[in-house]
Amino acid sequence: MTNRAAAPSSSSSAASSSPGDPSLLLSRRDLDFLLHEWLDVPSLLERPRFAEHDRETVDAVLDLAAEVAAEKFAPHNKRNDAEEPRFEDGRVRMHPEVKEALTAFAQTGLLTAAMDAEVGGMQLPQVVTSACFAWFQAANVGTSAYPFLTVGNANLLLAHGSPEQVETWVKPMLEGRYYGTMCLSEPQAGSSLADITTRAEPQPDGTYRLFGNKMWISGGDHELSENIVHLVLAKIPGGPAGVKGISLFVVPKVLEDGTRNDVALAGLNHKMGYRGTTNCLLNFGERGDGAVGHLVGREHHGLAYMFHMMNEARIGVGAGAVALGYTGYLKALEYARVRTQGRPLAGRDPSSPMVPLIAHADVRRMLLAQKSYVEGGLALVLFAARLVDEQRTAETESARREASLLLDLLTPVAKSWPSQWCLAANDLAIQVHGGYGYTREYDVEQHYRDNRLNPIHEGTHGIQGLDLLGRKVAAPGAFDLFTARVRATAQRATAEGAKAQRAGTQRAGADGGGGDGELGVFAGQLLDALGELESVTRALHGPADVEERLANASLYLEAFGHVCVAWLWLEQGLACGASEDPFHEGKRQAMRYFFRYELPRVGPQLTLLAAADRTTLDMRAEWF
Amino acid sequence: MTNRAAAPSSSSSAASSSPGDPSLLLSRRDLDFLLHEWLDVPSLLERPRFAEHDRETVDAVLDLAAEVAAEKFAPHNKRNDAEEPRFEDGRVRMHPEVKEALTAFAQTGLLTAAMDAEVGGMQLPQVVTSACFAWFQAANVGTSAYPFLTVGNANLLLAHGSPEQVETWVKPMLEGRYYGTMCLSEPQAGSSLADITTRAEPQPDGTYRLFGNKMWISGGDHELSENIVHLVLAKIPGGPAGVKGISLFVVPKVLEDGTRNDVALAGLNHKMGYRGTTNCLLNFGERGDGAVGHLVGREHHGLAYMFHMMNEARIGVGAGAVALGYTGYLKALEYARVRTQGRPLAGRDPSSPMVPLIAHADVRRMLLAQKSYVEGGLALVLFAARLVDEQRTAETESARREASLLLDLLTPVAKSWPSQWCLAANDLAIQVHGGYGYTREYDVEQHYRDNRLNPIHEGTHGIQGLDLLGRKVAAPGAFDLFTARVRATAQRATAEGAKAQRAGTQRAGADGGGGDGELGVFAGQLLDALGELESVTRALHGPADVEERLANASLYLEAFGHVCVAWLWLEQGLACGASEDPFHEGKRQAMRYFFRYELPRVGPQLTLLAAADRTTLDMRAEWF
Repeated sequence: MTNRAAAPSSSSSAASSSPGDPSLLLSRRDLDFLLHEWLDVPSLLERPRFAEHDRETVDAVLDLAAEVAAEKFAPHNKRNDAEEPRFEDGRVRMHPEVKEALTAFAQTGLLTAAMDAEVGGMQLPQVVTSACFAWFQAANVGTSAYPFLTVGNANLLLAHGSPEQVETWVKPMLEGRYYGTMCLSEPQAGSSLADITTRAEPQPDGTYRLFGNKMWISGGDHELSENIVHLVLAKIPGGPAGVKGISLFVVPKVLEDGTRNDVALAGLNHKMGYRGTTNCLLNFGERGDGAVGHLVGREHHGLAYMFHMMNEARIGVGAGAVALGYTGYLKALEYARVRTQGRPLAGRDPSSPMVPLIAHADVRRMLLAQKSYVEGGLALVLFAARLVDEQRTAETESARREASLLLDLLTPVAKSWPSQWCLAANDLAIQVHGGYGYTREYDVEQHYRDNRLNPIHEGTHGIQGLDLLGRKVAAPGAFDLFTARVRATAQRATAEGAKAQRAGTQRAGADGGGGDGELGVFAGQLLDALGELESVTRALHGPADVEERLANASLYLEAFGHVCVAWLWLEQGLACGASEDPFHEGKRQAMRYFFRYELPRVGPQLTLLAAADRTTLDMRAEWF
Repeated sequence: MTNRAAAPSSSSSAASSSPGDPSLLLSRRDLDFLLHEWLDVPSLLERPRFAEHDRETVDAVLDLAAEVAAEKFAPHNKRNDAEEPRFEDGRVRMHPEVKEALTAFAQTGLLTAAMDAEVGGMQLPQVVTSACFAWFQAANVGTSAYPFLTVGNANLLLAHGSPEQVETWVKPMLEGRYYGTMCLSEPQAGSSLADITTRAEPQPDGTYRLFGNKMWISGGDHELSENIVHLVLAKIPGGPAGVKGISLFVVPKVLEDGTRNDVALAGLNHKMGYRGTTNCLLNFGERGDGAVGHLVGREHHGLAYMFHMMNEARIGVGAGAVALGYTGYLKALEYARVRTQGRPLAGRDPSSPMVPLIAHADVRRMLLAQKSYVEGGLALVLFAARLVDEQRTAETESARREASLLLDLLTPVAKSWPSQWCLAANDLAIQVHGGYGYTREYDVEQHYRDNRLNPIHEGTHGIQGLDLLGRKVAAPGAFDLFTARVRATAQRATAEGAKAQRAGTQRAGADGGGGDGELGVFAGQLLDALGELESVTRALHGPADVEERLANASLYLEAFGHVCVAWLWLEQGLACGASEDPFHEGKRQAMRYFFRYELPRVGPQLTLLAAADRTTLDMRAEWF
């Protein structure tokens, strides 16, 4: 409202953002539950790599993240959206709060939180690092993108760059002086990287000169740092066709001698949301001589290296989607507690006072749905981060290999599931707010617009489906490992359910059958869905032709995701033990919601997949 | 992009809106199919009320609507969004194109298209009028709202106002000189109209003076017309509590003597989308003496009168949602035909040329889903409009009564189903465009933002669910009438399917079983779903307490909606006959998509409803 004089007193306390309040960003209680009560960070901290850390340092770093996110990132989130970065005289203009926030972020040391001590890192577990990062994504996803891309860029160079490249580019990135990007897409080639045309001409001095246009480059230009380190995919003339001819280059904005490299900002994309992150069209070699680039690793192996960063970025996208869903949920919950409207259906006496929104079953349904999506999504992305730790520090080689295999399998799910369902959470957060939620006075409409990017970038939903069904579940041992893990959880749940039933404990909302066998009931439901998923997976890797096999890969991705998140909800239910703490009761109710309202969605999807439905294949272009 | 020099040539033809092109707004071929091949407008035109009309006049008016929508409404759709109306010095500033468009609209005569000749109306069937209006909603939903609210306002006064009120207020509205609004909500009372506090003090001269604040008033202020006719709900002191004490008043912006009434614009709401329609907080009686109001009909009967307009507005919301979904679909389809990306999965030779997006099964899935939603939604809202014609002109009293009963029953569905699924269509339209779809260069992101309003205004999704389950299906005879109609269609489909099977015709995409029995297969599937819906409906009207009965009313609404739209898809399939025209083949494939991918969604919903699930009821506020 231009004039808010007449705004309702009952809602004013929830109106607009509350920048100083971390409790509207994420739930620290939930993070503690996931890290310590479920993902067993305490035992992780006993491993040699994490010897410097204990519960106290973990708590401190989470406190710090929440504090800096709330104080430095949240306050300019709306402004960055309403007055997005502008392209003026070839330069990017943005609000000074962005740089201030990034300076504060660099000072926390979180840029190197998970990295090795030898490069100045804190050697925190990845799962703790990801939890820290989520605070910033919840507070301001647009500003967070700059350091998070930088971390991914640095990790790639640490893994595949030369010592000299690490010294020259990584070190200043980790000091917060340089920022990094990833330059894959081109105007004519997004999903189809085989078709990039940027070329890299080898030079006598061992460097390359790059020519071409790169599109959709997040953080592709700005004046936030001394330099920008672009990681660019390009083709060296004479190399193999398609993706096998792609090489990877470091192309800095500013050359080592302080002059500008031939990388020009050609324009900014104006997006629906996520506006704080500049998204650029960059022209390489526009001046004629080419942009100076340094080969990373070996020629023609660029795509594999880039996937190092890409896989990390995909999980980061999932985490960002969760964070946006989570903060929207907390704001909807707050609004539902303070805003009054209507009366109970059973007693609609107009002279009685109105009740808070949360008193209506349909509002609780919308809140429970959000809770099940955002807490389920957070469990998923932290589980993925935990697998990174396992892959790095598990005691046996086979445990490390298993973690790696499972992480690969779950990467498309960790990217796509939160992108779909935490966007759905934002949609419900608006709905809980009613008309107010549709206005820019409140935060939730921005979260919805911001989150809509996530099913698109770093590989669309469709690409993730093809990756999961066409590649990941076909990797030897991967799918079996997943099903074995799910079965192990179901077994534990069945045993716990039976134990509770024998003990005769009764708990509110427990399955009608009496006693507390609901964990067993849910375990059975999960096993049924898993069994169907298995037979569909097997059938889809039979002799059918590839078009038919993958025709409904997106549906497969969605069904797989729901089975996977149901599994993690059962895990969370188990982690609640017998506690009757309201927090654990809420977890259990969200688990019930997921098993009763959500998991059943996969039935029709799997039936369709099992039938190898040809509807989309048979549709002809001329029939539209 | 600020600089589009490097934009891809393959997509530039689809970039941004094509204002002059009605073929990107709606499909005229589809409208002709629905009106003439399915809804039997030819026989409708033989009724006395429509004696002045024939196919030629219907075609002419549809041509005119498409032309004016494309030429006058579409061109400023993006500008109205990017530079929304502003509140300056107590006045609303907006672009001059809006007024030009509205003048052109008034000149078409469409304001009175469906009205009686005696008030200057064209006496066109409502179903044709609604089809005409949809062109404007597709072109520019923000600008369209002004005349469409005016038509609803005029219809209410024609039905319930005095002859003098019709003369004073309706006549200039129908001439396009005045515009109308509906003022129900207040800052503290949106869904809960019982709690409005605007009061109307009776005056000795028979008028009233109104005091209070009205919120979310679309078209509540502007300088597009000589006057604005507000229809305002208010309470006369001393009347009954709650909704039974609500009366309805005409409150003009400008009094008959030319002075300003005491109605002040207190502010504009800044919305996510739908920005071209001013949305206002209005203060009545701020100057102290009260705003002059004229009672409509009898005291304390205001809500019933308002529902005359509200029901029309609800179907109008559904139609607007369809129109936005439809134009987004057509733009996605166009993009998918011209944009190339990737190669067939079976032959990924990088030296072969890239294929258009539409060659990918997953893209066809997204297009088929959109087609099934927007064509299904258009069928639904035109079916509702056809019921209005039936209610007005059917030959027998019982046919008129039946039409009325069915229209009442389907109103919440016609409002909510398109609001949900045509928004989903817009989401998919963005996804088909990839990163480009997320930018404001293309139209689809705006359609998505505009359409997000529709599940909120004129009664939220939750309110529609309560209306359907708590009131409409409980109306004597209503639900049985619905099921009888669905059964009749299923019977015809079964008979047609059997006939086709006997004839041994084979058709692409037909059900595997051989022959063309698919209509019978779909009929069986529909009857199964209907049977479950019936038993759930019966169970939910048993002795259970009202909170439990209505706890999942939103789910009921969604399941009912999908069954209803499946029915209308079967109707459309039947209307295709044996034609092998590509248009009819496409219709059939969309029907198949709906039966195979969509209708099965209701299974788990109905199972949950049948179980009288208590998950949301049992959730306690303190557990969140």
